[in-house]
Formats: sequence, structure tokens, C-alpha cells
Amino acid sequence: MPDNSTSMAEGDGPVPRAHALSRHDFHKCDLILVKVGTGVVTSDKGHLALGRVGHLVEQITALHERNKRIVLVTSGAVGAGRRKLNKQAIMMSSLRSQMGDLNNPTPHDWDPKACAAAGQSRIMSLYEQLFSMHDIRCAQVLVMDSDFSSPEKRKSFASTINTLLSIGIIPIINENDVMTNRETPLTDSDGHIFWDNDSLASIVSSVIGVQLQILLTDVDGLYFTPPESVKKGVAPRVMHFYRANTEVELGAKSRVGRGGMQAKIAASLDAISRGVGAVVIASGHKQNSILDVCGGATVGTLFSSMSFDDSVSPRQQAQLARDASRSLCSLSSEHRSAVLLAIADALAANSAAIHKENQRDLDAAVGSGMSKAMADRLVLTGPKLAALCAGIRQLASGPDPLSRVHRKTELAPGLILVQEAAPIGVLLIIFESRPDALPQIASLALQSGNGLLLKGGKEAAHTNRILHSTIVEAIERSSNGAVPRDVLQLVESREDIGELLQLDDCIDLVIPRGSSDLVNFIKGNTRIPVLGHADGVCHVYVDQYADLSKADHILIDSKTSYPAACNSAETVLVHEALIANGGVNTVLQTLGKAGVKLLGGPRAVRQLHLPAAPSLKTEYSDLAMSLEIVSDVDDAIAHVHKYGSGHTETIVTEDGDVAEQFLRQVDSACIFHNASTRFSDGFRFGLGAEVGISTGRIHARGPVGVEGLLTTRWKLRSSACHTVDMFSSGQLDYTHKALE
Amino acid sequence: MPDNSTSMAEGDGPVPRAHALSRHDFHKCDLILVKVGTGVVTSDKGHLALGRVGHLVEQITALHERNKRIVLVTSGAVGAGRRKLNKQAIMMSSLRSQMGDLNNPTPHDWDPKACAAAGQSRIMSLYEQLFSMHDIRCAQVLVMDSDFSSPEKRKSFASTINTLLSIGIIPIINENDVMTNRETPLTDSDGHIFWDNDSLASIVSSVIGVQLQILLTDVDGLYFTPPESVKKGVAPRVMHFYRANTEVELGAKSRVGRGGMQAKIAASLDAISRGVGAVVIASGHKQNSILDVCGGATVGTLFSSMSFDDSVSPRQQAQLARDASRSLCSLSSEHRSAVLLAIADALAANSAAIHKENQRDLDAAVGSGMSKAMADRLVLTGPKLAALCAGIRQLASGPDPLSRVHRKTELAPGLILVQEAAPIGVLLIIFESRPDALPQIASLALQSGNGLLLKGGKEAAHTNRILHSTIVEAIERSSNGAVPRDVLQLVESREDIGELLQLDDCIDLVIPRGSSDLVNFIKGNTRIPVLGHADGVCHVYVDQYADLSKADHILIDSKTSYPAACNSAETVLVHEALIANGGVNTVLQTLGKAGVKLLGGPRAVRQLHLPAAPSLKTEYSDLAMSLEIVSDVDDAIAHVHKYGSGHTETIVTEDGDVAEQFLRQVDSACIFHNASTRFSDGFRFGLGAEVGISTGRIHARGPVGVEGLLTTRWKLRSSACHTVDMFSSGQLDYTHKALE
Repeated sequence: MPDNSTSMAEGDGPVPRAHALSRHDFHKCDLILVKVGTGVVTSDKGHLALGRVGHLVEQITALHERNKRIVLVTSGAVGAGRRKLNKQAIMMSSLRSQMGDLNNPTPHDWDPKACAAAGQSRIMSLYEQLFSMHDIRCAQVLVMDSDFSSPEKRKSFASTINTLLSIGIIPIINENDVMTNRETPLTDSDGHIFWDNDSLASIVSSVIGVQLQILLTDVDGLYFTPPESVKKGVAPRVMHFYRANTEVELGAKSRVGRGGMQAKIAASLDAISRGVGAVVIASGHKQNSILDVCGGATVGTLFSSMSFDDSVSPRQQAQLARDASRSLCSLSSEHRSAVLLAIADALAANSAAIHKENQRDLDAAVGSGMSKAMADRLVLTGPKLAALCAGIRQLASGPDPLSRVHRKTELAPGLILVQEAAPIGVLLIIFESRPDALPQIASLALQSGNGLLLKGGKEAAHTNRILHSTIVEAIERSSNGAVPRDVLQLVESREDIGELLQLDDCIDLVIPRGSSDLVNFIKGNTRIPVLGHADGVCHVYVDQYADLSKADHILIDSKTSYPAACNSAETVLVHEALIANGGVNTVLQTLGKAGVKLLGGPRAVRQLHLPAAPSLKTEYSDLAMSLEIVSDVDDAIAHVHKYGSGHTETIVTEDGDVAEQFLRQVDSACIFHNASTRFSDGFRFGLGAEVGISTGRIHARGPVGVEGLLTTRWKLRSSACHTVDMFSSGQLDYTHKALE
Repeated sequence: MPDNSTSMAEGDGPVPRAHALSRHDFHKCDLILVKVGTGVVTSDKGHLALGRVGHLVEQITALHERNKRIVLVTSGAVGAGRRKLNKQAIMMSSLRSQMGDLNNPTPHDWDPKACAAAGQSRIMSLYEQLFSMHDIRCAQVLVMDSDFSSPEKRKSFASTINTLLSIGIIPIINENDVMTNRETPLTDSDGHIFWDNDSLASIVSSVIGVQLQILLTDVDGLYFTPPESVKKGVAPRVMHFYRANTEVELGAKSRVGRGGMQAKIAASLDAISRGVGAVVIASGHKQNSILDVCGGATVGTLFSSMSFDDSVSPRQQAQLARDASRSLCSLSSEHRSAVLLAIADALAANSAAIHKENQRDLDAAVGSGMSKAMADRLVLTGPKLAALCAGIRQLASGPDPLSRVHRKTELAPGLILVQEAAPIGVLLIIFESRPDALPQIASLALQSGNGLLLKGGKEAAHTNRILHSTIVEAIERSSNGAVPRDVLQLVESREDIGELLQLDDCIDLVIPRGSSDLVNFIKGNTRIPVLGHADGVCHVYVDQYADLSKADHILIDSKTSYPAACNSAETVLVHEALIANGGVNTVLQTLGKAGVKLLGGPRAVRQLHLPAAPSLKTEYSDLAMSLEIVSDVDDAIAHVHKYGSGHTETIVTEDGDVAEQFLRQVDSACIFHNASTRFSDGFRFGLGAEVGISTGRIHARGPVGVEGLLTTRWKLRSSACHTVDMFSSGQLDYTHKALE
């Protein structure tokens, strides 16, 4: 390679920068380059990694069958060849003396070019055989840097590749390592580099107009902290979107291959600057990673032209929120109240603009054919906004939750321990549709000293954005800049919720507000504690000694006043005596008249000829209800424990003892006597604003007010100087006197 | 197959039942049979699954290189052949008219025997090629049921296989589907069945004396609930050890293949009864599953002769504990106290026997070469036991934690809401070494109405067992059988902690008591909430206005009184003024005299010439400490936030304002003024017995007493009948009056 080192970019000028592709666009890409690294193609021990290569061929087959054009750039020849040479050397030497070591050939320092020659044929033979199992043909293209040194050569290369692609043949490209003498990276006049297969992939992509380039390696992508520095037992975290301004601590180089992560980053940014739509660095060790990337899943690290933007990542947002929340906690209680009042004033003052933005969301919703019921949830009317402001003002004038003292103890004279309320730290609220959740939850979080990340639904994007900016401007203004706007952040990155749910080291609590599918998804996909409830299978038990007119009222209220609410009743349990004496009939009639469809459990199907319920755990969220007959209160309690979701249950009876047994033994968050299940609600319970309803048993249970956003901390003050030794040596004794 | 259907077991009598193998023994097995199902070898679309087959070959290569003898039983020929025939049929018909459909051949109802003929050659060609890439040779063995019909035939078969194995060739066995006419399962005179490749594998294993048989399929093993019945977003749970008495709800049959899970269970139990050491059903879709199984990892479902025992699974234990805890909660407060007293009495009365069992553990520890420090932790002396009993009696005479009322509110006249303490439910305590943790934690759990699973260390097995039996007998006796012994269970299954940590649907809280590696492992491997702390990087900040003699006392106490404790100080921060005026020298001298090695942060290295600390996050747990210089209290606070673990920090100063700033702004569980960090402890805080120290921010923070085992629940009592509608319609108004 003598004289062409700077000539590569001559002539044809810069490729126009492509429209930035996001993951949502990837399924539309039809020319895709996949580069596989040595660590993917060969194993730790230098074997060809048959499983991974086989799976690669399968995935490329799948794309091929969807009429995608695929170009493969493969490494691994040198590694595979080294092992082949080793084996061959042993076979050539005395077979007998070496017999025992056949499977573990002694390493030998072979000429890499000899390895490349031996390995390239073996690796191509493997690809050829595997593709042929799927009736696909492939072709070998070996290149050198000189092959890209002029526009003519590039054109000719592109034409060859296009010919192959046009008749459904997969080109398999590698550098012709047998003949290459380059020993340092080659930089062309535009600053583009040719060094390894990563940079080769970028050059090929730009020359043939690839839209999506996938670099498969032996790690999951770019990590925030290199895997070797992460604590034992803790999984390293992948940066799913590369931002040029992100500080990245790179780990040791990959165990094999020339590139390393730094080279991959450079090659990826180079590809983007040459007009490739997107590059993803992903794991070639994971199942389906190519198909997942092409399908738009959040795997690996994505580079696109947005990588050059100066936006911050969700992780940085969380860190900024924590810092800002500490500033918030430094404010006096009065000052925090003043900030809340300023927010209420700003929202009120800005209502015309808010209304306008809300209208944009509504127009878009109508345009997208959203159902009216769904669109209704988006509406933020004047009265609704006024009510929100009133709520915030009420909160501001209420007691300071952070001033609450849980416990005060004298450990010894002059040594006083206090357990005080403290903010949890950084909260993540994920909410769907209703934009009114934003100011409500924001004010609760601020009052309790927490930082907050808000991820709202796309459908309310404009409304959320103006609510957010109105609020953070009021915070900065009213705190004279003491509390930065970072305390409250809207997460709008294109990446999906997955990235946020990974951040269990910098987010303390997630509060989902939305459908049970949303809650289940979040619970199943994060290690961050979740405050919420997925199910509400609430029961009404009508006892033998029930006042049946009360039963009527309570059932109608519990079932029909808002069937979609989680605190609506889903199952009525009826004491068998009411079947025998016909008392149940009024209940059936009342529910029937109210349009409630009844479905029976096994006994009710037999004795009342009701249609069978699909399951006694069903949450209908509609005018339908399960009915089952029980022998007595014990049977009712057992039923609730077996089929319930631990939300809310109520007993209707005039027998005080039975009622108390039910209240004592039922193991649910809320247990009621002669009252509707629908009282299970933060406002109705007098908790002020409601953060959520929790069916978990840890941290918070049932309707949760601002206490759900608080933890405690311990302060110990000595008026002298106290050591543990003073007590263990007998100088002092603990008094442990409760104070106040 | 005419006349040999019942002759299979003639002659050679039952194979002697092998010693039951546990997973720990698997690495010693040197004759292993691997059976791969159709769903592993072929894809959903009927393609050969190249990746999975390649990976299979790689794993077998790895075992082969460890000198294991491997027999492969493979399915997949019919599936692979069907696709081949389809393609061929299209090629034969008019190429032009079908061109568009080449990749999606129309399904055709081919004769399975024709498929088998076409597929068997393709699948063998693939194995042959892949194994040859690793320089391994394989051989094809096609069998029919008649080939096992007499002892002679079986002997001849075994001899063939052994010949191949003896020269390092991998036998690849399949039923000769081209020639088989059997249409229903064939049962021999011993009740053994030959039907599919699962039962073929069991027969082959017993005939050639396989120790470990692995059935690879397309699911992770046997599930407790079939995947299709599990809620969206929730992962189905694998039963890692099959017990013949377990109720299993089987799902729909696998999408391909003849067998299904029921057939696999039957074949596995059949293999065990024929003397095969162990069978594991595992996923052929997961990475490294064969190597993982052979290495003893808890993957897939294990069958061994212990499968026929009548022990219960950890899941059943958790369910029994929950039921029993509900009985416990039905006891009156006095009765629960009486149970605790009975436990204390029983432990005291049984002390000689306990001592004897403890001695057995100690002898074993000495025999195994355990260090003295480790062995010391096992000792349960007379005085220690007496102190434990005293602690339990004190607990029994203390206030009932379940009677605590957190809040009482009148929602409206006659409608009273109470928030009461309630047990969390089922706790899992995982503890290492110290057996005294068992009675301590058990009494706390019982007092607070919880069910408890205890997983102790193997090294204290005898002590734990007698402590446990003493306690549960006392519970049953003193409750007159009202509380079953299930309320408190020792988990002693051979399966490891992994199985327990999966049970997030039936265990509410895990409390690890042991090393930080244990805690990190648990936090990283479960979705159950964890109460504990992995790190304790506590700081002492010596302010400019510190009384240096106080600083001396506090530093010595914080660092040297028990360096391995989590509440010991790891870092001392010194105000820069004390460097300038030499005040720091007394601190350095004091620590030096006490044998504490000081390592510096960047400023201290520069200014005090200390050796550099490995990291300012280091937890030394030894007589060593980081020292760093800070500019002022703000800098100290920033340092704590950056490098601390949020456990305990103390400030030494005579300036009250600075102290209050430190107490207000430091965001840790415990913040002290002029007091040793070692006060961070449940007993010293006056909380009674300590459940643990939590550095989490959810549920409990800092030293945790019995409150950490409690949650709350809400009870609403109407003296009339209340519905939500009465309030929303304006008939009634909420009063929300706080009571008491």
C-alpha cells in the first residue's frame, strides 16, 4: 500500500448527510450492512463459533426472505486460521507423541497472513454450507484500502456489489488480510480512517448507500461503566443512544480483534458523517440481535446524526434531578410553599396558552382517529385547570410533610435521636393520556422535596410541554434561581421507557399512572420499586345477617358508579342462607335493573343457573360481575384470599361479631363494613391529593397520599461527645427515653 | 413391528437403581446423553435452526474436549425434510409462475416418511459439516423399537455405541422414521414405553449406562403454570426440581414434535426407574444450556430418584407459611405473647441438646479447615442462648406491634377510617454462619404476625435444625395447634437460593444477613423487595471548629471498636484550615497509634504525602481508612454525596450552625453530630431487636426494628350504610376529622 493514503476522498465530494433515522424507521430500511467481529465469529479458544455463525445466517435468511438486501462484512479469518494451522502442525509432527494433546494444540506464533489464508477458506466454506442449507447463495469479496482510493474504483466496487444483490446473492466482504501490509490507521484527506473491519464497514456503507449499519461485537453495546469496573453481581448498563457530549469511561479492549470500542465509536460517527442513516453497535452473542435491531427494539447503542446534538441522556437527567432536589430541600418550608403558590399563579396566568396547546393535541387525536373516550381524557378545560391551581394552593397552605417527626428518643442524657421525614429522592412518573396528572404530581413531589422525571404520553405532548415549562419557569423565578429547573424534567427522548427502567441506581421509585397493562409491563421490567396496582378485583360479601336494602345500595354504588375504576367491585359473595330463603333475589333484581350482567362461580352456576364466569379472578371493568355462593364468613374470607387481588373488600352485615372477624382476618389493603368499595381513594380517605393506590405490601399500601413520596432519616445530636465505648465499658447507660 | 411389543424387558431383569445424582455431581458424569427435540433443530418456519444446531455442536465439542463421552439423540428430520420437499416441488413445477413464492413455498401434505428420508440426509450432512469444522467425527445410528426387543439386541446395540465412543466418535441416534409404522405408544412388560425420541433417549440411556440425560426442548423446563396462562408481562416460573407429588398444570403441547411435556415427564421418570442417575429437561433455545446443566447450574427441571420423595417445594413452603401466618394473626395479642414465652422456655429447656448439635457443626467446621474467625461465628454458647431467651421474653412483654394505630379519621358522622399496623406476610431470611440469628429473627417475625422461611448456611445445619424444631414444637403446643408449624420453615432443599429468589409472587420481603457479596447477589437476582445494605462507607467530617479531643475520641471509636462492622467509619474528611494550622497532626497521630493505616484522596496525597487510596468509595472493613482534605462543610457534603453509600455520617464541630447545615443537607440514612458512627444500630437506637440496617430509601431506612416487618391496612366502619354517591350527589359532606 504505498501511495494512496490520502487519495480516498478525491473527486466526488462529501456525501450529503442523510435524514437521521430513528429506531422506528429501521423496519423500512432495505439495504442493510451487518459487520461481525472476530469475537462473534470465533470462540475464546479460537474455535469457529458455530452457533453464532449459524444464527447469523438464520437471521440474514429471515431478512433476505423479507426482500431486504444484505451485505455482510465478516472478521474471524485470522483467528480461525490460527487454530487450523495449530492442528495441522500437530498432525504433521509425530502423531504418536502428541496424541494426548490433540484437542489442545500448543499455541504457536504463526504469521497472521498465513493464518488469514488458512482461515478465510474455512470461514467461507462454513458460510457457503450454512447458507446452502437455506437455499441461499453467497459470494466472497476480498478488498484492500487501495480499492477505495478513487471515485472510479468506488463506483466499480459499488457496481459489483449491486450486481450480486440484484440477483439475491449475499456479498460477504473481508479485508484481504493475506496481502495487506498496513500497520497503522490510514487517514484520508477528509479525515476518514481505514484501519479495521469497523472502518471498512463504514466505507462500504457509504459507497453503496447503506441505510442501516449494524456492528456485531461481543458486548451488548457501549456501557456507561466498563463491565470490569462494575460491582460483582450488578449488571453493567448499556447506553442505548450515543450522544457526542456524553462522558464515556471505556473499558479494556475486546479480547480479540483489532478495533476495540474506541475504534467502533470513531467508525460509527464516521459512517454517520458520510451519510449512513444509522449505526447500531449490538451483541453478536445475543439471540436475534440483528432482527431485534431491524425491528426497532431498544438493543445496543444507536448512532445517528442526532448523536451530534447536545441533548442530555435520561441518566444525566436523573442525576441533575437529584442535585436539584437537594437544593430544593435546602429551602425553608415557607419558601417551598411560596414556590408552590408561584406555580399555581403561573398556571392560572398561562391558561390561554395552555388551552391552545391542549387544542393541538386534541386536533391531532381526532386526526389520528382516536376514540372519543380516549380523546376526552386529553382535555384540560378551564375549570379543570382552575381546580388544579386550587389544589396546589391548598397543598401550599397545608402542613409541611418534611417537618414531621416520627420518633424522638433520649439515648442518654445529652444524646438525642430524632427520626424525621425525608424525601425519597428521585421519582419517575409514567403517565398515559391525562395531562392534568402532570401539575398534580409535580406539586406533590416538590412539596415533599423530591426530584421528578415525567414521562407522559405522546398523545398529550404539546400540553405536557407547556405545563412543564410553565412550572419550571415559576420554580426558578420564585426561588431566585436557588432551585434549578432540573428538579422537574420531562423525558422526551426518542428512546422508549426501557432506558428509564434500567436506571435503578439513580431513580428511587416509579409511579405508573395508567392501564394495568402499563403497570404490569413496568413491574415486569425494572428493579426500581414500583408504587401502584395492576389489578383491582374487589369483593362485596353479603352476609346471612345483611340488611338487604343496604346490600342493594352498596352493590349498586360499588359496581355501577364507575365500573372502570380499580376500586369498583368485581365479585359479590352471597351467604348460602340467602339462597335458601330467597333473600338473594332482591340483590339479583337490583343488579339486573342496573344493567349488570352476572356470571356465576361453580356453586352459583349449579344453584342459580347463572352463566359461568371466565374465572373468579376476572376484573370486568364493565357492567358485569361474578357471583358466588359461600357457606359462611370463613368461606367468604377463604374465597377472597384465593381469588382476590388484595385491594378492597367490604362486608354487608348487621352482625357486629361477623363484621369484626371479616375486618380482622381479611388480608387486603382496605377492608370495609357496610360501606361501598369505592371509598378506597386518597381524597375520600382525607389524604389530600392521591399519589396512587398500592396493592404492594412494602412501603405503602392502599390509597397513598404524599407520605408515599417520603422516607425517613435519623439525626443524632450530642451536646458533648459520645462514643459507643462509653456505653460498652459501663461508663454510661442507655436511657432510651421517648421524648414528646 | 409385528411381534416384539411386550418382549423388551425379558431376560436381564431390572437395572439396579442408581445412586440419586444431584446437580453438584453432574460435573463428574462422563457418559452423557443429549436429546434434541424438533423445536430445537428446526425453526417455526421449518428451516433448519442453524444457530441452535451450531451451538449444540460447539457445546458437545467442549464436553468432548473434556474427555466426556457424548451420545446425541436428534429429532428434526421430518420437519427439515418437509421444507426440502416443498422447495423441490416448486422447483419442479413451472419456475416462472412460482418465482414470486420461492421463499414461501405453499404447504403441502407430504407423507411423513418421505419427509423423514429427505430430512435425515440433510440433517446428518449439517452435523457432519459442523463437527468437521471442529475436527470431530460423528456417526449415524438409525434404530427401531424392535432393535431393543431382546437382551442380545440390547447388548449388541450397546457394543456398537461403545465402539464408537471408545475412539472419540459422536454417535448421532434417531428413530428410523422412514421405516417405522408404529402409530400408538408401545408399552413393554415392565410398563416402559417406546413412543417418541424422549422415550427412545431413556431406553438408550439405560441400555448403555448413561449417568446424565439431558432433554433439550423449546421451553425452559417444566413450568408451574403454562406460559400461555401467565399474565401479560409476567415471566412464567420454572420448576427446577420435579417432585412426583407436585400438582402441575400442563400447557398446550409444544408446537412441533410428537412428545409434549407429559411425554417428557413420563420418559424422565421411566429413565430414573431404569437406573439413569438424573434427567434434566432444559431449553435448547438458551445459550450454553448443556454446559450449564453439566456444570451444575440451576437451569431446567431436574428428575432424580428423589423426585419420588414426598418433600414439598419451596413454593409450597411459602404458600403454607402464608396460610399459617393468617392463623397466627387470628390469635389475640396475649396469646401471641404466650407463644413467644413458650419458645423461650423451650429453648432454655433444650439447651443441652442444642449445645450438642452445635458441637457437631463446630467439629465439622474444624474438620473442613474453616478459619477460627469463621468458626467462632458458629458457636452458640450457654450464655449466648440465655441472652437470646431473655431477648425473646422481653419482646413478649413489650407492646404488641400489631395493635398500633397510625391514623384514625372520621370521614363523615358514623363513617370511621382506621389505618392499622399489619404483618407484611411471608418473609425470607437468608443468613450465613451465626445460628443465633434464627431464634432472634423468628421471634420478631412471630410477634409481628409474619410467616417466615429461613435459609441458613450449610455450616450451621445441625444447630439450625434443632433450633427450628424446638421453636415450631413450642408454637404448636402453646397455640393448641391453632398455629401450624408451617408458619416457620427451614428451607433445606438441595436446590440453591436461586429457586427461592424467583418466588416474588409468594414471598413479600427478603432479608439477607451476611456478607456484602451475599447482599449484592440477592439484590441482583430477585424481584422481591430486599431489606438490607450492601455497603457501609461511613464518613467522619472534622470541621475547622472541631474540638480536636472530641475528634480523636470519635475517630477511634468509629474506626477501631469493630472495623468489620458496616457502621464503622471508612473515610475521614478534614477541613483545610486544620492542615494549615497543624491541627490535623493530633488526628493523624491518634489514628497512627491505634494502628490505623491512612490512605489519601488526591489533595491529601499532595499535601500530606499519604499513599493513595484505591478509591474514595473503599470499604476497608479493617484498620485502614481514607483521608481527604475539604475546603469547607459544603465541600464535605458534596464529597459524602459523591462517594458515600448513604449509611451514616458524622460531623465533629463546635459550630452549631455548621452542624445543623450538615444534618439538614447530608442525604444519608443517619447523620450525627459529635457522636460516633457506631451508634447506627437498632439496639443502640432503642428499637429493641434489630431486623437489619437498610440503605434503601423505600419501606425502611437506617437501623430497622420490628416496624420493618410491618405494613398497614385500612379499615372503614359504617354505623349505617355509606355509598360514594351520597357524597357526590351532595347529600353528605366529608368531614375528614382526625380522631384521637
